[in-house]
Amino acid sequence: MATHADRRYASNKYDIVIVGAGPAGLMLSTCLARWGYKIKHIDNRAEPTPTGRADGIQPRSLDLLRNMGLKSAIMAHKPARVYEVAFWDPPRGGKGIARTGTWASCPSFIDARYPFTTLLHQGMIERVFIADLEKNGTQVQRPWTITGFTSDEKANPEFPVTVQLEHIDGTSSESVQAKYLFGGEGARSFIREQLKIGVKHKDPIAHVWGVMDGVVKTDFPDIKMKCTIHSEHGSIMVIPREDNMVRLYIQIASSTDADWNPRKTATQEEVQESAKRILNPYSIEWERVEWYSVYPIGQGISEKYTLDHRVFLGGDACHTHSPKAGQGMNTAFLDALNLAWKIHAVEGGLAKRSLLETYEPERKDVAETLLDFDNKYAKLFSQRPDAASEASAASTSSSAAEDNEFIKAFKSACEFTSGYGVAYKPNELNWSPSHPAQSHVVHPASTKLRTGRLLINADVTRVVDANVVHVEQEVPLNGAFRLFVFAGKPAVTAQALRDLAVGMARRGSFYSAYARADADAVSHHEHHNPHSRFFTVCTVVAAQRSAVDIPRDLPALLARYREHVYADDRRDRRVPDAAAPAHAKMGLDQDRGGVVVVRPDGYVGIVVSLEEGTATVDALNQYFGAFSTKKLGETQAQL
Amino acid sequence: MATHADRRYASNKYDIVIVGAGPAGLMLSTCLARWGYKIKHIDNRAEPTPTGRADGIQPRSLDLLRNMGLKSAIMAHKPARVYEVAFWDPPRGGKGIARTGTWASCPSFIDARYPFTTLLHQGMIERVFIADLEKNGTQVQRPWTITGFTSDEKANPEFPVTVQLEHIDGTSSESVQAKYLFGGEGARSFIREQLKIGVKHKDPIAHVWGVMDGVVKTDFPDIKMKCTIHSEHGSIMVIPREDNMVRLYIQIASSTDADWNPRKTATQEEVQESAKRILNPYSIEWERVEWYSVYPIGQGISEKYTLDHRVFLGGDACHTHSPKAGQGMNTAFLDALNLAWKIHAVEGGLAKRSLLETYEPERKDVAETLLDFDNKYAKLFSQRPDAASEASAASTSSSAAEDNEFIKAFKSACEFTSGYGVAYKPNELNWSPSHPAQSHVVHPASTKLRTGRLLINADVTRVVDANVVHVEQEVPLNGAFRLFVFAGKPAVTAQALRDLAVGMARRGSFYSAYARADADAVSHHEHHNPHSRFFTVCTVVAAQRSAVDIPRDLPALLARYREHVYADDRRDRRVPDAAAPAHAKMGLDQDRGGVVVVRPDGYVGIVVSLEEGTATVDALNQYFGAFSTKKLGETQAQL
Repeated sequence: MATHADRRYASNKYDIVIVGAGPAGLMLSTCLARWGYKIKHIDNRAEPTPTGRADGIQPRSLDLLRNMGLKSAIMAHKPARVYEVAFWDPPRGGKGIARTGTWASCPSFIDARYPFTTLLHQGMIERVFIADLEKNGTQVQRPWTITGFTSDEKANPEFPVTVQLEHIDGTSSESVQAKYLFGGEGARSFIREQLKIGVKHKDPIAHVWGVMDGVVKTDFPDIKMKCTIHSEHGSIMVIPREDNMVRLYIQIASSTDADWNPRKTATQEEVQESAKRILNPYSIEWERVEWYSVYPIGQGISEKYTLDHRVFLGGDACHTHSPKAGQGMNTAFLDALNLAWKIHAVEGGLAKRSLLETYEPERKDVAETLLDFDNKYAKLFSQRPDAASEASAASTSSSAAEDNEFIKAFKSACEFTSGYGVAYKPNELNWSPSHPAQSHVVHPASTKLRTGRLLINADVTRVVDANVVHVEQEVPLNGAFRLFVFAGKPAVTAQALRDLAVGMARRGSFYSAYARADADAVSHHEHHNPHSRFFTVCTVVAAQRSAVDIPRDLPALLARYREHVYADDRRDRRVPDAAAPAHAKMGLDQDRGGVVVVRPDGYVGIVVSLEEGTATVDALNQYFGAFSTKKLGETQAQL
Repeated sequence: MATHADRRYASNKYDIVIVGAGPAGLMLSTCLARWGYKIKHIDNRAEPTPTGRADGIQPRSLDLLRNMGLKSAIMAHKPARVYEVAFWDPPRGGKGIARTGTWASCPSFIDARYPFTTLLHQGMIERVFIADLEKNGTQVQRPWTITGFTSDEKANPEFPVTVQLEHIDGTSSESVQAKYLFGGEGARSFIREQLKIGVKHKDPIAHVWGVMDGVVKTDFPDIKMKCTIHSEHGSIMVIPREDNMVRLYIQIASSTDADWNPRKTATQEEVQESAKRILNPYSIEWERVEWYSVYPIGQGISEKYTLDHRVFLGGDACHTHSPKAGQGMNTAFLDALNLAWKIHAVEGGLAKRSLLETYEPERKDVAETLLDFDNKYAKLFSQRPDAASEASAASTSSSAAEDNEFIKAFKSACEFTSGYGVAYKPNELNWSPSHPAQSHVVHPASTKLRTGRLLINADVTRVVDANVVHVEQEVPLNGAFRLFVFAGKPAVTAQALRDLAVGMARRGSFYSAYARADADAVSHHEHHNPHSRFFTVCTVVAAQRSAVDIPRDLPALLARYREHVYADDRRDRRVPDAAAPAHAKMGLDQDRGGVVVVRPDGYVGIVVSLEEGTATVDALNQYFGAFSTKKLGETQAQL
């Protein structure tokens, strides 16, 4: 689905050089390769991660992988699925350990499609991305490394970045020119060091962790669950894996220890003996150890993610933290996704170059929250003996007293670890009262959508084929903004819909200003981008599917997206009495409707009421005008 | 998961020769290869089906494919999904065509996991099976054909069947010996002809059909749905396909026509012109035709499926009918599945050879029903002008008057086409009041399960990892009988569970009589068949997951299947008030419990109450004793 003509650059010129083929580098590369960019992607390892490393895919990341069409290839490896976390502690007045409670991984108050954590070896996940990359004509060049780079927009405005690359055995090297350079090289980033960007240590406490993947024989009943085990002999974390494997994390040393030494280590046998003591009275024997590693880790955050908005960092190069909450790979994915679509918007000509300035604050803020959370996570349960059972109550009961601080903290922790808690702050993309788009139609009081957060999930029925679908998944990750027109009842909103279509079609609107030059030649099989590479339009009608007649009920502009017209007729247990459940979940009146702009990465940009006249399109023009390269909708604005 | 030691036969000796690598042959081959049999599989085509042929996978077949672990490979091809069928007729007093109603493919009164028909080119489906076969060491030998065979159990009791095979170009040939021969060669079966088995024509009416697969440009609104279109210019059936394709079926001639000629044909252009006239006032243009074929077809049924229970027929070799209801591939799958596990039960030593005698009556009865249905299908909607809207009402309302004959016919048609209507009649496998197993615990009055029909679907929570699972999918297609112990509340049923375990462990029980010789050496990672290759035991406890303690609540025999212990704690909207919804759906009291024996192909064999004492195991011994090679449970029966 390359949306750009093949780049006909000189052989040493690229849109981007990506260093590192871990989760961050691969997500960026996969997106940009799909959207038609020319990529030089290198990694200093001879092959993808063979064992160990990250393995946790959080619920929101699974949504993203599905949106990319990669979920089924991941699930084909039969990963472990963690639905619950169990807490084990010394029993009151007894010996050994006892389960003190369990905690849903992703409790039902979070409306997740996949309410579990998926555990799979990082190498298998990398290979799924690599296969997709190769389908789009991009190969990861291995084992190659970066030896130097310069960035000078004045000297070379089109390809300002020059990068020196070398085979790791030193036998060959090349110099390439690019528009961008991305460092997804992990915690010891060469690019970050060359840029002299410091790492701030949020919490001065550092730890040495031992981690072991293997197959065990045990009578410990929760070996297939994620467990936090505290005992008088120390603490351990259990995480189930694919292929009957289990991962054990064990804290070997802490900078709070009297004899703290960041180079303290432990042998495999010592860790196994330690695990035996901690799990007592249960037995544990190793049948096979796949991977064992000891590593010191502190909480660090990169002071900058970029200096010049040409050379960017993401993933572990920007943030390090404990492995306990399984956030590393997920945060790396979202760093890269955030950058990918912004590069596309700028290079495709939709957005001003300054849009790239939103990458660092949006993602650095998430990293700060992650590090705060990482600190709290350990304390949350160690402080209160009844914490686990309270959490258990909180996760199953929606009426739990909200004023209990612990329950609040627990809920926000669940939201955060599931990936649904990411909340981008107001800026030109995420509407707020200080955004240039200001009118009575913006952000209707009833809406339950929050700008800077994910679109709420809802089932709808696709009109053309009666398929029941997840509305938030209907636009694939195509780099386009998603316009969800919640059309309400067509009999009531007919004029407003016509006015919306007229306004969108008008010269100088956000929509017409970025129309495809080849729009007239586009095949009628093009479902997502018939008019513009930067917008995909979905219309949700508050009616039963059989009552919807697309050409009769919708203006031609909306009807052109016939594969994206839906009936809001699927019962939802969260709004059991709603006639139009998807409208109700979004908090949009079915007699009025609304337009929801969703950023290409799935976060809500703005919500606008659907009104007769020009106000709706005016507000949309103002929204997009805040970052578009062209002045939008001047004509209407003056009406 | 080969369950037999590798067969160390002489190179020209096989367990089975399978002729034809269409749906029937591939299903049989795939099952038997997984279970460790040595197979000679030939097909006279140089490669799998390149275009055309069958393409409809019904809801129940998708369950089966999932149970085999093949569903995701099928779905990766992005097949079309048909949720609704639309009916178009001449409008009253008008010209052209108008939609008169729609009919859910698999209405909600059928409790289907996948309430849609999956449409995908047969060749892609064949390749999924072939890939699985190859993983299990079996290759389809192409292009080879069968030239002759003999079957003589007296002359050669171990390998009674001798088969002559030849490369289609005649350059090489071989003669092999086998225990069985299967003809899955399609309607013109060489094997059937050699056996001089006649074909009975159920309905003397024959038809000539034209079928065209291609990509069209049209404004016909239901082109992505299955449609039956009647117009003054003739009738057509529309079926959506993968890759924006559509299939059109058009009836070219009928033996009821005055000028009937079974060799009547039509060119591609004539069919396209005809489609244009029928669809008027909508337009239709062909962008590409992938496949076009004209073929005469009558309703035929093979008089026998086997003569000697060594040479068997299945699939189109046994039954031909119109393509309209999309049943061909599905019926072929189920023919082969039915035969596969019975061969396994006999060759593995569990069942007497006479078990094979149940293949023909079970599957021939389904074929008779299919042919009856095929007749009715066309008539159902042509007879009544309001049929479609009545069907529409029936499919959405569960309270529709049951005494309306049309609605009854409609519901039974839906059940049948979805694959959930297959009902095997009483025999030694499907308990009835005339079965040898007779006691007060057999078939408790409350149960909603019906012997000879599929287990009812239910969600449960797997205890060891808190995963929410589909209980009916938990045992993979491993050739074993599935014992579902609905344990009720453990506090109430503790003694009955202990007695069940004691009885199963007792020498001479159905369970102990067929224990694995290597049971002591089995890995603790063996989840499904630790004790016996012929039984997998699942236990469903009427409790919340967190309240279940497997070693405390279950006897060791049941606890050994720790990956198959479930908590019955998932709400089900069909039994919204039930404390133990899976128990409630099965109609089993949670204070009493029950044992459900499910055949290896998913059909319920017998339901027995869970009682203290020996009655429960006695009944199970009587059930299995009806077809087992050994006398079972004599000791208890005399108590």
